[in-house]
Amino acid sequence: MASLLRTAGRARSVLPRTIPHATSRVAPIAFQRRHASAAAAAVADSSEQSFFPDEPTAPIIKTEIPGPESKKAVERLSKVFDTRSLNMMADYSRSYGNYIADLDGNVLLDVYAQIASIPVGYNNPALLLAATSPSMASAIINRPALGNFPQHDWADILESGILSVAPKGMNQVFTGQSGSDANELAYKAAFMWKRQQQRGGAHVDFSHEDISSSMNNQSPGAPDMSILSFKSGFHGRLFGSLSTTRSKPIHKIDIPAFDWPQAPFPSLKYPLEENEAENAKEEQRCLAETERLITEYHSPPAAIVVEPIQSEGGDNHATPAFFRGLRELTKKHDILFIVDEVQTGVGATGKFWAHEHWGLSTPPDMVTFSKKAQTAGYYFGNNDLRPNKPYRQFNTWMGDPARAILFRAIIQEIKRLDLVSSTAATGNYLFDGLQRLAERYPSEIHNLRGKGQGTFIAWDSPRRDEVLKKAKGQGVNIGGSGEQAVRLRPMLIFQRRHADLLLERLERIFQE
Amino acid sequence: MASLLRTAGRARSVLPRTIPHATSRVAPIAFQRRHASAAAAAVADSSEQSFFPDEPTAPIIKTEIPGPESKKAVERLSKVFDTRSLNMMADYSRSYGNYIADLDGNVLLDVYAQIASIPVGYNNPALLLAATSPSMASAIINRPALGNFPQHDWADILESGILSVAPKGMNQVFTGQSGSDANELAYKAAFMWKRQQQRGGAHVDFSHEDISSSMNNQSPGAPDMSILSFKSGFHGRLFGSLSTTRSKPIHKIDIPAFDWPQAPFPSLKYPLEENEAENAKEEQRCLAETERLITEYHSPPAAIVVEPIQSEGGDNHATPAFFRGLRELTKKHDILFIVDEVQTGVGATGKFWAHEHWGLSTPPDMVTFSKKAQTAGYYFGNNDLRPNKPYRQFNTWMGDPARAILFRAIIQEIKRLDLVSSTAATGNYLFDGLQRLAERYPSEIHNLRGKGQGTFIAWDSPRRDEVLKKAKGQGVNIGGSGEQAVRLRPMLIFQRRHADLLLERLERIFQE
Repeated sequence: MASLLRTAGRARSVLPRTIPHATSRVAPIAFQRRHASAAAAAVADSSEQSFFPDEPTAPIIKTEIPGPESKKAVERLSKVFDTRSLNMMADYSRSYGNYIADLDGNVLLDVYAQIASIPVGYNNPALLLAATSPSMASAIINRPALGNFPQHDWADILESGILSVAPKGMNQVFTGQSGSDANELAYKAAFMWKRQQQRGGAHVDFSHEDISSSMNNQSPGAPDMSILSFKSGFHGRLFGSLSTTRSKPIHKIDIPAFDWPQAPFPSLKYPLEENEAENAKEEQRCLAETERLITEYHSPPAAIVVEPIQSEGGDNHATPAFFRGLRELTKKHDILFIVDEVQTGVGATGKFWAHEHWGLSTPPDMVTFSKKAQTAGYYFGNNDLRPNKPYRQFNTWMGDPARAILFRAIIQEIKRLDLVSSTAATGNYLFDGLQRLAERYPSEIHNLRGKGQGTFIAWDSPRRDEVLKKAKGQGVNIGGSGEQAVRLRPMLIFQRRHADLLLERLERIFQE
Repeated sequence: MASLLRTAGRARSVLPRTIPHATSRVAPIAFQRRHASAAAAAVADSSEQSFFPDEPTAPIIKTEIPGPESKKAVERLSKVFDTRSLNMMADYSRSYGNYIADLDGNVLLDVYAQIASIPVGYNNPALLLAATSPSMASAIINRPALGNFPQHDWADILESGILSVAPKGMNQVFTGQSGSDANELAYKAAFMWKRQQQRGGAHVDFSHEDISSSMNNQSPGAPDMSILSFKSGFHGRLFGSLSTTRSKPIHKIDIPAFDWPQAPFPSLKYPLEENEAENAKEEQRCLAETERLITEYHSPPAAIVVEPIQSEGGDNHATPAFFRGLRELTKKHDILFIVDEVQTGVGATGKFWAHEHWGLSTPPDMVTFSKKAQTAGYYFGNNDLRPNKPYRQFNTWMGDPARAILFRAIIQEIKRLDLVSSTAATGNYLFDGLQRLAERYPSEIHNLRGKGQGTFIAWDSPRRDEVLKKAKGQGVNIGGSGEQAVRLRPMLIFQRRHADLLLERLERIFQE
């Protein structure tokens, strides 16, 4: 609590109001004050300073969701675009801070945040300023082929942005466009590194056999090697990344896949602190099987890829000891350790990168990112991960300066408001509240997890889909994952007042 | 020529000057007049109205390329980013229209255009207006997960933009983020469609065996099926798309690949019109071998993917009859016909889509796009290509509204200035000039090709890399492809004045 107050105190001196508002020409809509009066009756927790002073103080529910206007819009969209996965028809011009609006005037507290990808609030004024800057406009209309014709300030954009938050031990970045893309780029780097090592180093050229067989998609040029991933893991949906994804059949069925190894991910008992001995044994079992696959699998892995918390797979946790064990295994067997921080990265676990919780003796070889970074790519520190020749790791755009400029603004906003510390503190506060709810409604909240992991919190619900649906009626947009997990993925500007509101609305649902 | 004059006449009445200039706050730099006086001595072809009246009239060469400032910037960038493929360190704030500037004050006529991806000129005022619009700002800072929470005007953005130029017979689009991504999404749609057909239709559910084997990356759930592509083709560098790419070993080596079939692409003799009989025979041979692979290959194809002109592979052409033959083969054997228009699409061949040159009896099943669209995805018309359940074709962002808004502005600019017709006419003019050069310098220009294909023109050069390097010294930025092709990929605003300049500079190089 003390640390939260410190955080709020620090934020107070640099309120969002100090950011000059963009001119009305470029401001999406003067949304700032619209909702404030409509929900003025709701009493907010007043002991902390709001990061978004003009944010609504409570949800507004005017119609069923979807309401009549949304239904009309969905019907129109469905003629040209698949809308069967549609959750809400959003009106972003009326969304602000933690609140998402729809076309019928409903305004919901959003703890799903575009599948964990909105970092610092809808229509954040600081991001608006970056989005309407001359450098952004130029980046949008003059998109470079970065590998051939980078813009003159690309080093500056990287150093003052993406690289300023690089994980310890990593000073280089390869930029891409999505989480899947970031992972596949990292996998490619791993294969090139491992084959180079097998050849005897960067100076040893490809053999004629390598060259000719590669053009026929045959070994050794297209090597019979693999990326080892874990049961229930999710790493994307392109062909290589999907081969490492093991979340749900609906993600994988009918798509050809590489015959790559899948290790068991620890199936832990929660709360972790009450089941330490049993969990440690389970993690040992998984590490042993991982090592067996590394040494025995017919298609040997060049790398292991793992999420710090398996997110799409249902918010499955493992302890720092497990991840340290993986790091040791990769060093012992001379393969790479890739940490997929696409969903965990950029602050949500109460550290900027979730793997900072582990106390590794040596950094991962590569860390991939996307989502809250609003751009994608992978960090690395080892120069050997630059392929031995140009054009081996290459594509037309190789990322997007416009998105890198936006990430820089996001980073500045996170630092300005100290949002990582705030998320750590708010997460503890929220977890405590959920624990109390779980005690009062033991049939509703099973396996509450994510303690000490910021707001990256989940639990299993025996009637998950019903809870998510009812939450909308209570003015809260929540997401699920895995078979029965309710997962909370609020933005980094989620504060105690929002936690209070979320807890109150959940209790209403449980009471029904 | 007559049609060019008509084009210019039409353009004259709607000059770029009529577009209100963005305010100085958002204008990257007041670049509009900077170069005009510096090169005023050069005499431009005055018989056509310029699309960019304030564009430089000739290149400006102040230093060797790279000059001292560029060298310093490259050295700095190389510490954090791989610069071995770097071609020029660009200064986009000083680039305008067809001209790209570097950090040393050099300004080059750009007929490579960011690997064929800049559509309507650097710092195009109409695009600047779109890039600084309220809807663009909102799209940048409120990026939605389009499959779950589309913005309320997504249908409108699609219909007034991307879908307004959909190829005939296609009324739906799936949006993505890069050419590789677009192709892989199309491949996934093809696999799902083919397996659904094999099961007996959309109503037939997955078998237990499908479900369990898919999670283990094994057949039948991860089916032993393929995408058939062609020798020398290029379809991207992600794992699935790279398995269909057959351009160069440097693109493929050390990356695991699917064992998918590769058909021969016709190796034609140029000029096409003088070798019709021999070329027809070659195309028949390739069609026969394609059919053999469709029916006999151990991993049967769900689809064929082909480029209208093989671009990265060296600008290899085939005749409309060959492509009509492919369409017939796919219909006969009940597989899909995917046309990869990532490089040929959006006007460069003198049609909006290159496959419009073919006179197909039925449209392709899917057409993929990226590059000049400044966004990516695939078009389709057949409702069966929507998978039978939601979340099968899905990812977090599913494209980017900001880029879709930009493509809409590009389309409007193309229509406003009638740039497809202009490119067709300018291409004919340029091709005639190159033909004359080839007659005077037969050792320099072999296999000139792309007649009647707009400005999508190439030739083989026995000293290609030297020519490209010398072109920079002459103030022209040109790209290569394949082993020895010089490929021209100017923007759609390339006009006769630019063609004259290019021809003149090429002749200087040949005379050296």
